[in-house]
Amino acid sequence: MIVDVHGHVSAPSELYAWKAGLLAHRGSHGVRPPRISDDQLREAYTAPNASFGDVSHFHHLDTAGVDVQLISPRPYQMMHSEGPARIVEAFTEEVNNVIHRDTELFPGRFRGVAGLPQTMDLTVEQWVPELRRTVTELGFVGALLNPDPYEGTRVPPALGDRFWYPLYEALVELDVPAIVHAAGCRAPAREPYSLHFIQEETVAIWSLLSSDVLKDFPDLKLIITHGGGAIPYQAGRFLPSGVRSGATPYLDRLRTLRFDTCLYTRDAIELLLKTVGVDRCLFGTEKPGTGSQIDPATGRWFDDIHLLVDEIEWLTDDQRESLLHGNAESIFAL
Amino acid sequence: MIVDVHGHVSAPSELYAWKAGLLAHRGSHGVRPPRISDDQLREAYTAPNASFGDVSHFHHLDTAGVDVQLISPRPYQMMHSEGPARIVEAFTEEVNNVIHRDTELFPGRFRGVAGLPQTMDLTVEQWVPELRRTVTELGFVGALLNPDPYEGTRVPPALGDRFWYPLYEALVELDVPAIVHAAGCRAPAREPYSLHFIQEETVAIWSLLSSDVLKDFPDLKLIITHGGGAIPYQAGRFLPSGVRSGATPYLDRLRTLRFDTCLYTRDAIELLLKTVGVDRCLFGTEKPGTGSQIDPATGRWFDDIHLLVDEIEWLTDDQRESLLHGNAESIFAL
Amino acid sequence: MIVDVHGHVSAPSELYAWKAGLLAHRGSHGVRPPRISDDQLREAYTAPNASFGDVSHFHHLDTAGVDVQLISPRPYQMMHSEGPARIVEAFTEEVNNVIHRDTELFPGRFRGVAGLPQTMDLTVEQWVPELRRTVTELGFVGALLNPDPYEGTRVPPALGDRFWYPLYEALVELDVPAIVHAAGCRAPAREPYSLHFIQEETVAIWSLLSSDVLKDFPDLKLIITHGGGAIPYQAGRFLPSGVRSGATPYLDRLRTLRFDTCLYTRDAIELLLKTVGVDRCLFGTEKPGTGSQIDPATGRWFDDIHLLVDEIEWLTDDQRESLLHGNAESIFAL
Amino acid sequence: MIVDVHGHVSAPSELYAWKAGLLAHRGSHGVRPPRISDDQLREAYTAPNASFGDVSHFHHLDTAGVDVQLISPRPYQMMHSEGPARIVEAFTEEVNNVIHRDTELFPGRFRGVAGLPQTMDLTVEQWVPELRRTVTELGFVGALLNPDPYEGTRVPPALGDRFWYPLYEALVELDVPAIVHAAGCRAPAREPYSLHFIQEETVAIWSLLSSDVLKDFPDLKLIITHGGGAIPYQAGRFLPSGVRSGATPYLDRLRTLRFDTCLYTRDAIELLLKTVGVDRCLFGTEKPGTGSQIDPATGRWFDDIHLLVDEIEWLTDDQRESLLHGNAESIFAL
Amino acid sequence: MIVDVHGHVSAPSELYAWKAGLLAHRGSHGVRPPRISDDQLREAYTAPNASFGDVSHFHHLDTAGVDVQLISPRPYQMMHSEGPARIVEAFTEEVNNVIHRDTELFPGRFRGVAGLPQTMDLTVEQWVPELRRTVTELGFVGALLNPDPYEGTRVPPALGDRFWYPLYEALVELDVPAIVHAAGCRAPAREPYSLHFIQEETVAIWSLLSSDVLKDFPDLKLIITHGGGAIPYQAGRFLPSGVRSGATPYLDRLRTLRFDTCLYTRDAIELLLKTVGVDRCLFGTEKPGTGSQIDPATGRWFDDIHLLVDEIEWLTDDQRESLLHGNAESIFAL
Amino acid sequence: MIVDVHGHVSAPSELYAWKAGLLAHRGSHGVRPPRISDDQLREAYTAPNASFGDVSHFHHLDTAGVDVQLISPRPYQMMHSEGPARIVEAFTEEVNNVIHRDTELFPGRFRGVAGLPQTMDLTVEQWVPELRRTVTELGFVGALLNPDPYEGTRVPPALGDRFWYPLYEALVELDVPAIVHAAGCRAPAREPYSLHFIQEETVAIWSLLSSDVLKDFPDLKLIITHGGGAIPYQAGRFLPSGVRSGATPYLDRLRTLRFDTCLYTRDAIELLLKTVGVDRCLFGTEKPGTGSQIDPATGRWFDDIHLLVDEIEWLTDDQRESLLHGNAESIFAL
Repeated sequence: MIVDVHGHVSAPSELYAWKAGLLAHRGSHGVRPPRISDDQLREAYTAPNASFGDVSHFHHLDTAGVDVQLISPRPYQMMHSEGPARIVEAFTEEVNNVIHRDTELFPGRFRGVAGLPQTMDLTVEQWVPELRRTVTELGFVGALLNPDPYEGTRVPPALGDRFWYPLYEALVELDVPAIVHAAGCRAPAREPYSLHFIQEETVAIWSLLSSDVLKDFPDLKLIITHGGGAIPYQAGRFLPSGVRSGATPYLDRLRTLRFDTCLYTRDAIELLLKTVGVDRCLFGTEKPGTGSQIDPATGRWFDDIHLLVDEIEWLTDDQRESLLHGNAESIFAL
Repeated sequence: MIVDVHGHVSAPSELYAWKAGLLAHRGSHGVRPPRISDDQLREAYTAPNASFGDVSHFHHLDTAGVDVQLISPRPYQMMHSEGPARIVEAFTEEVNNVIHRDTELFPGRFRGVAGLPQTMDLTVEQWVPELRRTVTELGFVGALLNPDPYEGTRVPPALGDRFWYPLYEALVELDVPAIVHAAGCRAPAREPYSLHFIQEETVAIWSLLSSDVLKDFPDLKLIITHGGGAIPYQAGRFLPSGVRSGATPYLDRLRTLRFDTCLYTRDAIELLLKTVGVDRCLFGTEKPGTGSQIDPATGRWFDDIHLLVDEIEWLTDDQRESLLHGNAESIFAL
Repeated sequence: MIVDVHGHVSAPSELYAWKAGLLAHRGSHGVRPPRISDDQLREAYTAPNASFGDVSHFHHLDTAGVDVQLISPRPYQMMHSEGPARIVEAFTEEVNNVIHRDTELFPGRFRGVAGLPQTMDLTVEQWVPELRRTVTELGFVGALLNPDPYEGTRVPPALGDRFWYPLYEALVELDVPAIVHAAGCRAPAREPYSLHFIQEETVAIWSLLSSDVLKDFPDLKLIITHGGGAIPYQAGRFLPSGVRSGATPYLDRLRTLRFDTCLYTRDAIELLLKTVGVDRCLFGTEKPGTGSQIDPATGRWFDDIHLLVDEIEWLTDDQRESLLHGNAESIFAL
Repeated sequence: MIVDVHGHVSAPSELYAWKAGLLAHRGSHGVRPPRISDDQLREAYTAPNASFGDVSHFHHLDTAGVDVQLISPRPYQMMHSEGPARIVEAFTEEVNNVIHRDTELFPGRFRGVAGLPQTMDLTVEQWVPELRRTVTELGFVGALLNPDPYEGTRVPPALGDRFWYPLYEALVELDVPAIVHAAGCRAPAREPYSLHFIQEETVAIWSLLSSDVLKDFPDLKLIITHGGGAIPYQAGRFLPSGVRSGATPYLDRLRTLRFDTCLYTRDAIELLLKTVGVDRCLFGTEKPGTGSQIDPATGRWFDDIHLLVDEIEWLTDDQRESLLHGNAESIFAL
Repeated sequence: MIVDVHGHVSAPSELYAWKAGLLAHRGSHGVRPPRISDDQLREAYTAPNASFGDVSHFHHLDTAGVDVQLISPRPYQMMHSEGPARIVEAFTEEVNNVIHRDTELFPGRFRGVAGLPQTMDLTVEQWVPELRRTVTELGFVGALLNPDPYEGTRVPPALGDRFWYPLYEALVELDVPAIVHAAGCRAPAREPYSLHFIQEETVAIWSLLSSDVLKDFPDLKLIITHGGGAIPYQAGRFLPSGVRSGATPYLDRLRTLRFDTCLYTRDAIELLLKTVGVDRCLFGTEKPGTGSQIDPATGRWFDDIHLLVDEIEWLTDDQRESLLHGNAESIFAL
Repeated sequence: MIVDVHGHVSAPSELYAWKAGLLAHRGSHGVRPPRISDDQLREAYTAPNASFGDVSHFHHLDTAGVDVQLISPRPYQMMHSEGPARIVEAFTEEVNNVIHRDTELFPGRFRGVAGLPQTMDLTVEQWVPELRRTVTELGFVGALLNPDPYEGTRVPPALGDRFWYPLYEALVELDVPAIVHAAGCRAPAREPYSLHFIQEETVAIWSLLSSDVLKDFPDLKLIITHGGGAIPYQAGRFLPSGVRSGATPYLDRLRTLRFDTCLYTRDAIELLLKTVGVDRCLFGTEKPGTGSQIDPATGRWFDDIHLLVDEIEWLTDDQRESLLHGNAESIFAL
């Protein structure tokens, strides 16, 4: 039994053609979503796809043994930094609707994780209704939390800032986790979105652990993606500060967060598991996606993270079960 | 025989889904265009389309008696204000390629009008190679000229400014007309792109006629779309200035430009024809597009401009022929 | 009987020399207005003036048969974008005072239309007292409303924005119309003020008709100058949207506004009258002003709009009377 | 015999009304100056004027015994920070023309000091032709140099910066002095123009004496107005630095400049004369102007600087002559 | 008996090395101040110092006969424009603590004048607790008031602005004077901090006397340093305005403020005393500091202001006593 | 034998007090460095220091068995983003001089690594002379390269940009390595400098490996500090892109760089060694510094990296020797 907490929706071209239109007419054609048939939705999962290494989304899941995947919007497509706000709202809502239809078309295979309309032209309070709608009406089990709604164009408040509290309150009230995952990245930032994810996760952890967020919201469940950016690797750098200030030791503070295993080398996954503990880790692949390429050296898909986990011999059976599904079932109440 | 100088490409969703991706990953996935089959290209013209009033592109042309249509990129999709420059270049090139394939798939039906990669992160000189490629290699008969590459986000140099001279030089050298047509429009501008077209055309005419452009490039052929914005209606306002300065009378200066008939009321078309002269006007419909809606009062499509022209009784046969195709054949060397 | 709703004050040099001083010392000499005698005020109307074609203001009115003219401040002199606010307030107040004195010096000939101190360093609420003063104490019959207090230097809220509601409320409460008329225009805008008028009127109509202003203020009387910018000419472009959204047809929405005839060609005036209806139009000339120049082709003043109206044969007598004075008398309660 | 080096032109309202127009239409009416008759020019000097304490310009000169006055444009009216550049150029040129006509209308009474078109939209090189024209064609004896062409809106290069070298070169070549005198002052600066003069003079002296300007242009003649701002009073503050760096002693460096006596208290004038030496001082009154008000305590005009000089008993006859006219005659080659 | 109201703390290198660290790590090492021993504190006053002309702080005081010196933070070191706010707060507090320890180590020799944490990232209200702490807990007798917390980087509200009222209220409530003294100065300002002091004092006086501050706070005691910038020298310039507006005469308004004698030439000191009156002046030297250099011409220290005062023969004995200590004792309640 | 390539200078308070002064007076006191005696320099290494855990710099080196340490300026103190440029130049030069004196005072113990005056107010070419001076005159063996001279205040060109080429050319010509190490970090950046190091190293590697730098400069030796930021941990994320583009495999590209071992956990060090290869790694501790704190759990200093290396059992003797000194000796030509 495998639960993959880090999957993203696969959707037909019509959805993204509509998005291109929103960005072109900026809402002056209205924001009515396109008609997409169930067949089109199904084909997005069952047809081979050049972006996925010429196999289908389901082929990836099946060969990796993923029984249940949590799917959220493709983060880099979320366009939080675009305007006016209503095109961000419309696109977010429709992507969530597509995800919901996917969960119904493939019962048991998927669980929904919501995108939120995180444009800075709205208040954080105004992001919450979509969280509420997806959780209470569409049965979603969590939400993405983009720590940089400006998408590289300006410096946002860090996650330790009280700016984010209305969202934390709603997450706690609805009792669902947030998956911390940046969206796009544009100039003047220098890095591509994929590296921006890592940078933002690094700042996110630093900021959260330097703040009172987890004290103020002890029931808040935050999952940092891609293995926590740089932090598990650089954790030693932060250990002394814990000592000097007499605060909770840094590694203990780190364990107030959760992390997914979306790292494509075994050494990195091992480092993560050792640093934060297996009980704080959730199996996640981002599959199909960035890593859906055959490694010529091994003949494996780079994102065959389950094979990397299999190779970690020191994991006990219990730990392995927890990692592959138990922790996810527990935190997401699957 | 009717030649419609103001048509835009109809393309499959795959093209725009690719564009949405470019705007999301900003080129970090590369800029390779999607595979689009000839069948997909054909279907974009032959299948009914909700945006076109639930009939096909060809249905519009056929019922309107359009024999030949000049097709250019959909201007509001051109994304000149986005970055980095290479995604603008890639998208422009691919749209031009699609137009070229369309002209080959439907021989005689279409003639290509090029989009140019008018990002301000390139120099005007750097826009020219795509003009050259489309005209000399793909057989295009002209190009769109967007007077506001900033798409509403900043104030660009007006068309009378020497900034634009490298493009004017290339147009004259290649002996092809430019169709002046704005692209998108974003905040802080207040207006939707459709109104932005009108505003930019108005400023364009004012700026050109206040400058030496037509003196410096007497062979430059510029066609102002949508009947010239506000200028023919407001022409009286500019007549006195011509007198005071002893300059060429304003109406004569106005006749150094050409105008299309893309106006959806007969009175407006008549005003245009009377103000600038039938010999300076070209039949253009933007069909299918903004006006592809049935007028409940008449049962006609709003963009059935040929019917409006038919009703103008004072046109001589020669004038009518010139308007419907002769002027276009001459200026575009069809 | 002719009532001209679009006239501007003619004032002695002393008034504008004082203004030049305000802009030079920025209020540090105080803002006390200059002493201007009644004779100086009279002479501004009765003496030949180079800017008016070397005849007097009254000569223009008399030969055009204008019995009553509504006079407001010269808009391009209003300096709404200058600072500090108190020099804008002082100048506005004094120009209104001059207008008031003119109405008393020439009883029956003039009716006052107020300028308002529309600096963005004040709130809209702070513009209202001058409206109230001029209407209730000085007997003014309306006010100018500049839709761009930034005068081209930044993008202001469009007239459909709630930003403007305090002014709309006061206009309704006092039951006087507002004449929508931009003021000056400076860099970075590209256009001269005269073209800026047209551009702003175009956006103003678009914004008003896309908003709820006329629903929220059904008694609000707004007169768009210069024949409504580009809109009557381009009206066809907006007809389809009315159909798509199931909203009130665009032409009907257009008739919630009024328009003056300040256009210097007969074709344009006819287009206006046909598009919005004679009952929504008011005779206005801007005379003497931009058009006060003899047309060498006809020997007429360009701004002899009454002659253009005379030539429109299809107007009934009733329509002609309404246009030349009835509509104005009604809406301004003359 | 008294020569007053610090006088400003008195001009009819028509000149400033024209300026108000330039600032309103920004050149779109053209920049042709108004017709001003010789009688109007004369009356500006001979008629009582409220701004001058209800007496005339000549009354001030006559009662103060001023035989010759150097007149330059009213600095606070120079509008160097306005745009576009051609309205600054036109206004500057016309004011200089008026000054020239004044020198011809009242032979022997006035000598011209030019304003320069110091807009930052031109290069310093582009300011020079007007200097050349006024000196070589109109017989002017010097020019104003505004150290802050931004008029308080931004921070300009200080006078010690190489930015100013093209102007210094031209002054030396034409062998005429420059009178350092700021123009207007606007937000975000906090101070009125009159205080801005003082602040800019203070920075000007500091910057010049910290730079190599006077070494690079040993023949450059710069006159700092209003007694040199704060520097003579605060000179002690700068003495130690001279010692530390082994440079020319500060007071000696100060004597590479000239100063006018435009200070309205005897103590201040004495401090100036003692600090920089009588040989570096020129009699100047700014009369009529800021100080043209009767002091209720003494019954004198505040700007009766000749009376203050009379009271300074320690001046020798030679010094007195030098101060009142000799130094000016020498430096201006009168 | 001499009381010097204008002295600044002399502190060991450890204090400033700590400050350099704060500016480098921006608080991420925490803001705990360094351990500084009493011996180190004492040595800062008793050891010869290159910056003081190779003698000690006490040598300066002793040879000048200063019995009591008011010491405040070195203003140019106050770093009000740096961030985050807590490093400004920490440094300010620690400097005040050092001053307090100095007053205890050398009983009777020093009285403390507080620095305030004037960062614009705090509100004015948030500056007040440190004033309260130093006065009520540490026995300080006044505070520095920096009129430009932006230190040249932006334009702050002038002292006449209501922005400053919370501080004025606290000063009045605690019944202590404020010494107006700018801090540092950075680009884009052109001037060094030492000249910035003068410029800011000049604006401060102008702004205060143009405002209602002294009416609203009749008990507010403000001491303008460095002899009041340019104002006493330029006072004549402001006399007429007093007359025109019928306001309190300017010189009387000037006497609502106090001034120190920190000017290094006798003529300047005399001008000050005559202009504002001996009763408004306080002996102040800034010693050791800018002027602690031997004048090669006289063999004296430039900042030997007591010698300059000695030479002013017209002072009565009473005036001399008031100037050297009486006025200070009274206003500071020593 | 151990060579530690990542050490920073320990300097007396006088150096940093001087720096605090430079930042306060911005160069207006001149930029002459303070007198620091050899004894003061020695004491900085031999005296216990609170920042170092109350032992001395040498105590750290001796107990860790470090024979030779490369010392460079404390990066967070480098103030590259301050101005004017000459204070950055002066401070950089003096710190380099102190380092040079240290190498002479403790022969054989230290080797110098230069700071460069990396202010963006200078060109990159202008940074080179100090590199040249330190290498050719002072015998330094390399230089720090700060990839973010703006220190968090703006986005700099990434290291793959041609902006940096003049520096790369000089490094190659002088045949010395550069140690990539960020300096300070200020708002608007969110992170403390210590985390900024990690973020900048991550971007640096990404940018270098996405560019042609190592192709254009095959002899360029770049050492990325702190184990390469996030990259070794996240390397899997970048592997697929290597495949898709047919480029050199990512891990091979990674091996064109070097890395130090400045990571404070054994797992992280092992991950680094495995990912990039022992031959690309250099022993570095940053000792004494951030990690100079006793770990209460182990009783060891956190920065006792030699102990972590000792525990890595799979290292061969040769690898261990290379890591601890051989690689450093080779690349730095020790």
